[in-house]
Amino acid sequence: MSENNAASATGQAVVPGAMDPYRQFLSDLLGVVAYGELSAFERMSSDARFSPTLRDRAALGRLAVREYENFERVTAHLESMGVNAEDAMAPFQASVDAFHDRTRPGDWYESLMKFYVTDAISDDFYAALGSLLDSESSQLIASLQETGSEAAGEVLFVRLQESLKDDPRLASRLALWGRRLVGEALTQAQRVVIERALPTGMDGILSPEEFDAQIRELFSQLTRNHSRRMSLLGLTA
Amino acid sequence: MSENNAASATGQAVVPGAMDPYRQFLSDLLGVVAYGELSAFERMSSDARFSPTLRDRAALGRLAVREYENFERVTAHLESMGVNAEDAMAPFQASVDAFHDRTRPGDWYESLMKFYVTDAISDDFYAALGSLLDSESSQLIASLQETGSEAAGEVLFVRLQESLKDDPRLASRLALWGRRLVGEALTQAQRVVIERALPTGMDGILSPEEFDAQIRELFSQLTRNHSRRMSLLGLTA
Repeated sequence: MSENNAASATGQAVVPGAMDPYRQFLSDLLGVVAYGELSAFERMSSDARFSPTLRDRAALGRLAVREYENFERVTAHLESMGVNAEDAMAPFQASVDAFHDRTRPGDWYESLMKFYVTDAISDDFYAALGSLLDSESSQLIASLQETGSEAAGEVLFVRLQESLKDDPRLASRLALWGRRLVGEALTQAQRVVIERALPTGMDGILSPEEFDAQIRELFSQLTRNHSRRMSLLGLTA
Repeated sequence: MSENNAASATGQAVVPGAMDPYRQFLSDLLGVVAYGELSAFERMSSDARFSPTLRDRAALGRLAVREYENFERVTAHLESMGVNAEDAMAPFQASVDAFHDRTRPGDWYESLMKFYVTDAISDDFYAALGSLLDSESSQLIASLQETGSEAAGEVLFVRLQESLKDDPRLASRLALWGRRLVGEALTQAQRVVIERALPTGMDGILSPEEFDAQIRELFSQLTRNHSRRMSLLGLTA
């Protein structure tokens, strides 16, 4: 019954077949990553329809397809751990959906900005957590990060830069939108992953004080990186 | 100036750099196929969000991704012919969009039915035209058709069959919806491809009478195949 005790000590519902804390942490982390990728795929490909040109639609579609491929990679990893991917995703569905409902882009430019900001924050966030994982899971998380000129972040950055050049009035609107997005994204990260998943997995690895300190450092790093990305676009964070 | 003469004889606008009739026909055909795939990708992945289960969302997402891959294959072929893919798609954008607007699914089941019906009709239609093409283009068209248990048509059929078994009252609604879809799809096929693209490409290959006869035969074949697919689902076509 030690599994059940561990689960109840961390405030989790005691369910038959409860997992050990690390496995539960990993299942939660991969569950939220998978559901995030699936949602991003659906939202991005829906928004693509409102692109100003067919070239933009095709480009955003391609980014959406990569989110789907990431989703499949993560769910395959869950299944290989013997975890049902739908079960792992289900606890995060309501809050990820609520995040998207609170950050509905008003037009194509806001949509670009949303994916630019949230993809980057998610990448940073998961990369930070990746270092705490077993090597196979950490490689999986690393494989989701893209680099180079074809990377989603780079494609979105270039397109945003062009748009801002074409219409300088866009800058103040997108700066405001960027601030709203980062606020929602950090709240989301805090709520979904920190409250639910991290403390469980950190039991016996970090003390509560070390845990708090690491989380504070992580969030200030996420904020700094976001500000740097906004500056690169010439926007006030 | 023979290119321009050929173009004006078939009622096409004479534009600088006008293509010879077969090339124009092929560019039109691949343009409508590409735009159809891009639109299907976007609509399908948007509709996926309303799936009853996460498993269904993932499954519909996967079908949507394959539409995108087909889109990329067709646009690559256009580019290899030296045709700008956006230019080839543009003439068909309004009518394909209008088709989707006229056939907006009321729920997930109508959405499944829509993709089941329209994918199959498009496949039949393009397969019939494929036989008139040069071997490379005809291979491309053939490569877009799927077979086996993973094929979109089969996945959608199985899911529709399950849904109809779970809720027999669905049958009359989906039968009605299927009739509306086939009507819209055939009108669409007639309008977009026959009026615009086929007569041009058939100049010198078929006489107007032979052309009319082939088109009548094609449409009755499309209708027969649709009725057979509805019967397999236990629905009245």
